[in-house]
Amino acid sequence: MAITELETGAPRLDTMEPLYKVKDDMSNPAKFKLWEPKIKAYQNELARNTLSEYKVPEVEIPDTLDTVPCNTVKYISEIKHLSPEEHTITNLTATELASAIASRKYTSVAVLKAFAHRCVIAHQFTNLALQFFIGEGIKRAQELDDHLASTGKTVGPLHGVPISLKEHMGYAGKITHGGWVSYLDNIPKESDVTIDILYKLGCVFYVRTNEPQSLMMLDSDNNITGRTRNTHNSLLTSGGSSGGEGACVSARGSPWGVGTDIGGSIRSPAAFSGVYGLKPTSKRVSIAGTGVAAGKGQESVYPCAGPLTNSIDDIEFFMDAYVNSGKPWNLDQNSLPIPWRHEVATTYKKPSKITVAIMWDDGLVRPQPPITRGLKYLQDKLTKTGVKVVKFDPIETQLAYDVVNDLYSCDGNVIHRESIAKSGEPLLPLTKWALSFGHGDDALSIAENRELNYQRDNLRKLYNDYFFTSGVDLIISPTYNSVAPLGINHGTAGAYYWGYTTLWNILDLPTVVLPTGLALDPRVDVKETDPPAPRSVIEKIEADKYLPELLVDAPIAFQLTGRRYFDEEVVAVSKVIDDIVNKSS
Amino acid sequence: MAITELETGAPRLDTMEPLYKVKDDMSNPAKFKLWEPKIKAYQNELARNTLSEYKVPEVEIPDTLDTVPCNTVKYISEIKHLSPEEHTITNLTATELASAIASRKYTSVAVLKAFAHRCVIAHQFTNLALQFFIGEGIKRAQELDDHLASTGKTVGPLHGVPISLKEHMGYAGKITHGGWVSYLDNIPKESDVTIDILYKLGCVFYVRTNEPQSLMMLDSDNNITGRTRNTHNSLLTSGGSSGGEGACVSARGSPWGVGTDIGGSIRSPAAFSGVYGLKPTSKRVSIAGTGVAAGKGQESVYPCAGPLTNSIDDIEFFMDAYVNSGKPWNLDQNSLPIPWRHEVATTYKKPSKITVAIMWDDGLVRPQPPITRGLKYLQDKLTKTGVKVVKFDPIETQLAYDVVNDLYSCDGNVIHRESIAKSGEPLLPLTKWALSFGHGDDALSIAENRELNYQRDNLRKLYNDYFFTSGVDLIISPTYNSVAPLGINHGTAGAYYWGYTTLWNILDLPTVVLPTGLALDPRVDVKETDPPAPRSVIEKIEADKYLPELLVDAPIAFQLTGRRYFDEEVVAVSKVIDDIVNKSS
Repeated sequence: MAITELETGAPRLDTMEPLYKVKDDMSNPAKFKLWEPKIKAYQNELARNTLSEYKVPEVEIPDTLDTVPCNTVKYISEIKHLSPEEHTITNLTATELASAIASRKYTSVAVLKAFAHRCVIAHQFTNLALQFFIGEGIKRAQELDDHLASTGKTVGPLHGVPISLKEHMGYAGKITHGGWVSYLDNIPKESDVTIDILYKLGCVFYVRTNEPQSLMMLDSDNNITGRTRNTHNSLLTSGGSSGGEGACVSARGSPWGVGTDIGGSIRSPAAFSGVYGLKPTSKRVSIAGTGVAAGKGQESVYPCAGPLTNSIDDIEFFMDAYVNSGKPWNLDQNSLPIPWRHEVATTYKKPSKITVAIMWDDGLVRPQPPITRGLKYLQDKLTKTGVKVVKFDPIETQLAYDVVNDLYSCDGNVIHRESIAKSGEPLLPLTKWALSFGHGDDALSIAENRELNYQRDNLRKLYNDYFFTSGVDLIISPTYNSVAPLGINHGTAGAYYWGYTTLWNILDLPTVVLPTGLALDPRVDVKETDPPAPRSVIEKIEADKYLPELLVDAPIAFQLTGRRYFDEEVVAVSKVIDDIVNKSS
Repeated sequence: MAITELETGAPRLDTMEPLYKVKDDMSNPAKFKLWEPKIKAYQNELARNTLSEYKVPEVEIPDTLDTVPCNTVKYISEIKHLSPEEHTITNLTATELASAIASRKYTSVAVLKAFAHRCVIAHQFTNLALQFFIGEGIKRAQELDDHLASTGKTVGPLHGVPISLKEHMGYAGKITHGGWVSYLDNIPKESDVTIDILYKLGCVFYVRTNEPQSLMMLDSDNNITGRTRNTHNSLLTSGGSSGGEGACVSARGSPWGVGTDIGGSIRSPAAFSGVYGLKPTSKRVSIAGTGVAAGKGQESVYPCAGPLTNSIDDIEFFMDAYVNSGKPWNLDQNSLPIPWRHEVATTYKKPSKITVAIMWDDGLVRPQPPITRGLKYLQDKLTKTGVKVVKFDPIETQLAYDVVNDLYSCDGNVIHRESIAKSGEPLLPLTKWALSFGHGDDALSIAENRELNYQRDNLRKLYNDYFFTSGVDLIISPTYNSVAPLGINHGTAGAYYWGYTTLWNILDLPTVVLPTGLALDPRVDVKETDPPAPRSVIEKIEADKYLPELLVDAPIAFQLTGRRYFDEEVVAVSKVIDDIVNKSS
């Protein structure tokens, strides 16, 4: 079904106007015009580094990507432009790759080239990359191969494994703009701690991926290189803010990547693109360094970094290597020196010993049919294998939603506003929406900020008590009230409701995203004919956008959430659940 | 030397006036008058519960406590009113007591009575207690004795061991005022998490100890029961804000106690009273619960709780039991589930493997003669045994001082002002001083708060890098630029400069206070005749107050500081240093 045949379902301007709490006196077309040469130069650099020898002929790229759904994952998995060996290599997990490189089955160079090749093609379809530097990657891979050949030893547990990086993480010597035009001049002298650590562990870098203006969208669109398309349906968003990562990893343009998350930015791209993701508890993966973000010094909703992968094993592999070999606390005093307790993650917990609680509805915005179908599917599969499945009655979700939204904008959007004003770039619709959370441009006082922190801590206590007293290992919840929404038209029919992901940010609880293998089927996931009346404007906005014909092939995925700092247990139990859901018939 | 023979050295009003940044429109004598009956009732309750059978005759209490130095520690250590067994018991450490009770050498009741007896006497001299409830303590001790007798088992590792508690920690069913008159009506329904944990581990409670108005003094004076005197010299302050604890533990009115620290509140009382103390890294000992403090939701300078003890072994014993058996994270999601790595603390590190760096002067306020003498004494003792001693060149101490002071008051003192205004109680001079830190009553914006957090994190990185690259195990620093200053006259000649302790709060570094066994001797620690010109007003204020004749017998103690979250290493190395300094000749 082509987009021209249907409305997008985006809310009308008269619905949105009363909800906006941001004054757009920052955008300034005349000023912005002065930045156009820099944007053009940046785009040209990207085009130049999208190596032509890796590209598929332009003629193979449909010119209807933004009007007719195109499934890049399916296309690329069968593509003849990749050699059989390239297919084989790029279908391996990072865990398998590390082992194959260490045992010299594959060279790091061969691995890098295969992923770079596939990444370039995926980029042609989805616009996932902001920077390619494949030459540097090959050089580094060659050095690692030479090191292994001459010493017989790897430099670290991730020796030779390619990894993609979300762009706003500071990278020495490379423009780091974080989605802001005004940062196109910003070239950090040092890389972020996490990039440094991954380098030392043996990773190979070659691509930095897309993200939205402000980093505050469950979408990835900006005024520099535009939007990233969903790899399963090109009309849809790849999620955000780590949307380039979601696209890259799901297309196997990289075996895995690093995203960041303060409101859903790892989980939305992982779920919308059908890959695995981990939003760890804060301070287990470092966010220290030179990266660009509007929230420096903001600690009320602490941001975090974490992996997006193609397997649950890779999440464990990443965390084990990163924490235990990387020891981020030596470089960043905010990183907790808690070893990754891999003995937990490798201890098989019998399904019959596991209890999960399903959140069918957070009480604020009703999930759409594919989400409910997915939860039933999980419930059935889990119950059959002996997992105890109970219902989760949402605890104070309205309060949590209000508190987290108040906190997001409590500084009055000062840094966001400055970052836009500097270049005069257009304020994108979903940035405008995100900056309208809470009190929008109206700054709160420090005393009010503290009161919100106090309410947040009370919420955290309720959930901590719930886990401690109920015996529930994990709460399973939707990642969003629907599958990936439309990304076209600057995401005006995109994700407005963040409550399903922000709940776990305000609570700072470790959360795995688990794909189910299911995807939206318009014949099955038909729009509800007689749903209950919407409980709020936001619920109505979200319901109106559910047009299944447009959302074909969108993956169905969920969040698995456990106790604060007990990331190891969350991953370990998720692994058992993944075995049941994705590896058994 | 009596106080009447000398000026106190307190700064003159015309020196102070330009420094105040707080408007005292909260105090209101007429309103305060309405609270007097409640204050009187509280005082009467305290007097009634200061059991007469434990008291020494009033005639033995000098009526010159506030004019002539009286050494309570010395007096009480020889006192005939305590039986030989009571002397023996109260001279044991908590570690020894737990063992003696578990092996039934002493009953918990006998132990509690001995400490309660000694505590009452110490209170008569120093005014350390806010509440006694010795009857409850005896009842609880009896229950524990019965349990041990009937089951042969202890309830936990601290079975039967008495402990004193700083009052502002919420205690179920008991007034919890935190030094504010306006909270005299406040009776929490639940106790703080840490109190709950200590109870479950087997501790016996019987006394809650004094603290200052606002909790923001390195002194312990309030409008409810007045000031706590130093146990070594009654003219001096016992420090603060956990000043009741410093007095109680040093007089062995309890074997150990719990204090809290956001600017020096464990370390100042420990040092001024000559006992051991640990300000752990934040979030290792829970501060969650119903306690009264002005900083709820304030996270920029995170407060912490920790033990004051009579031995370094007791610090380790406390932390091991509290963390590993208490598991605070089950009750408080902000507590880090990092086990206490007792294997570190029990591993002897050879003196020759240890490197310490001495901070002779923080570059802002010059230490007085007894402090410098104490540091030389440490340097000599440590060097002789093979410890490598280097000089610590202060890193950005001015910036750290400015940032932490800005952060203390950045909300514009809102809660402090409200808490005073509610009762109209007089604003005490040292509260007025503390509320003048940073911008005083002028609230900063949230954006400014975040910028300060960012600067704080940069400071933390500098120190983290220092430890990581220098190989220095601990930094040894003064706890204050002098020994305990005068506490009389509402502490107007008290501690104005907090920089030596707040440095480790802004950096959130674990810090042990180590007494040296040395004390101020006016014949030795004479005032410098030709010191360098003061570098600032605050340095001049502090220098002018150094009148050694008044400060006789004041203990000399230091801070030992190590890496964030590496509390175990700090305690382990401190133990080796303690052996050298305090246990060898």
